[in-house]
Amino acid sequence: MANGLAFRPATGADWPAIWPIWHEIVAAGDTYTYDPATGSEQAQQMWLPSGKDETWLVELDGAPVGTYHLSPNQSGPGAHVANASYMVGSAARGHGVGRAMVEHSLVRAAESGYRGIQFNAVASSNVYAVKLYHDLGFATIGTVPGGFRHPEQGFVDLLIMYRSL
Amino acid sequence: MANGLAFRPATGADWPAIWPIWHEIVAAGDTYTYDPATGSEQAQQMWLPSGKDETWLVELDGAPVGTYHLSPNQSGPGAHVANASYMVGSAARGHGVGRAMVEHSLVRAAESGYRGIQFNAVASSNVYAVKLYHDLGFATIGTVPGGFRHPEQGFVDLLIMYRSL
Repeated sequence: MANGLAFRPATGADWPAIWPIWHEIVAAGDTYTYDPATGSEQAQQMWLPSGKDETWLVELDGAPVGTYHLSPNQSGPGAHVANASYMVGSAARGHGVGRAMVEHSLVRAAESGYRGIQFNAVASSNVYAVKLYHDLGFATIGTVPGGFRHPEQGFVDLLIMYRSL
Repeated sequence: MANGLAFRPATGADWPAIWPIWHEIVAAGDTYTYDPATGSEQAQQMWLPSGKDETWLVELDGAPVGTYHLSPNQSGPGAHVANASYMVGSAARGHGVGRAMVEHSLVRAAESGYRGIQFNAVASSNVYAVKLYHDLGFATIGTVPGGFRHPEQGFVDLLIMYRSL
């Protein structure tokens, strides 16, 4: 499936395609540290590119299946390390879309001159994502004890992950 | 000296007192991951309170000597862990202002119901701050290799620190 994927930079015109994926994932409250009640307008402001950020839309046969956001993780003296966030719509999961997006972001980040990619907040309960990131060369460099309040599991650890480029 | 300190919540009217401290520290580029060229207006937007944030001004005999900012470190399912940033004007350093601010913030964070405080980006070269945080019960829970570009020392590690409340 991943071979049929098309990546293109997202613009404001793509928000109606991105929002259902974004909203489904954030409203579930079990993977991302966004407010689950975040509305479309605020989400668009956070997710679509501004400054050094870039946002990608991933399509399969013209249908939106995923999106990711790449930006500096810190400003100023920390801006040489990137941060990335990935979202795959539930209908497309288990077919390599997430892996393809991470691989794409590694290339993009290297091309942009970043020296590494850092994830600040990976819920340890998100075992699929943790395994995928490990497979792709990310190491867990830190653990915030009980840093994520999972809707069913309660307080679980929040992982900080990093891969150099 | 710390005994003569007065803490009060900062408002927009206090920005002229805070900005010289903020600017001096950020422009030096050797401790904070803000853009050293950040202007007054943007700094005010980031530093003064909005939402669940709170910002404190610390005065000694009516003169501003320090400021700190307390906010959720993440949103949604991560909002129970606080983030805090502290700044002490150069003229007042070495007299316990920083320590008094950290201690004050620990009380404020606990009163606000946070379960811990996390620092995302402590330059390892900032040995005074690292020692102070360790003294006050923070542990280094993660290290971003070369995550901070120090103006003289080049790439140094960026520490992630945490203390439960």
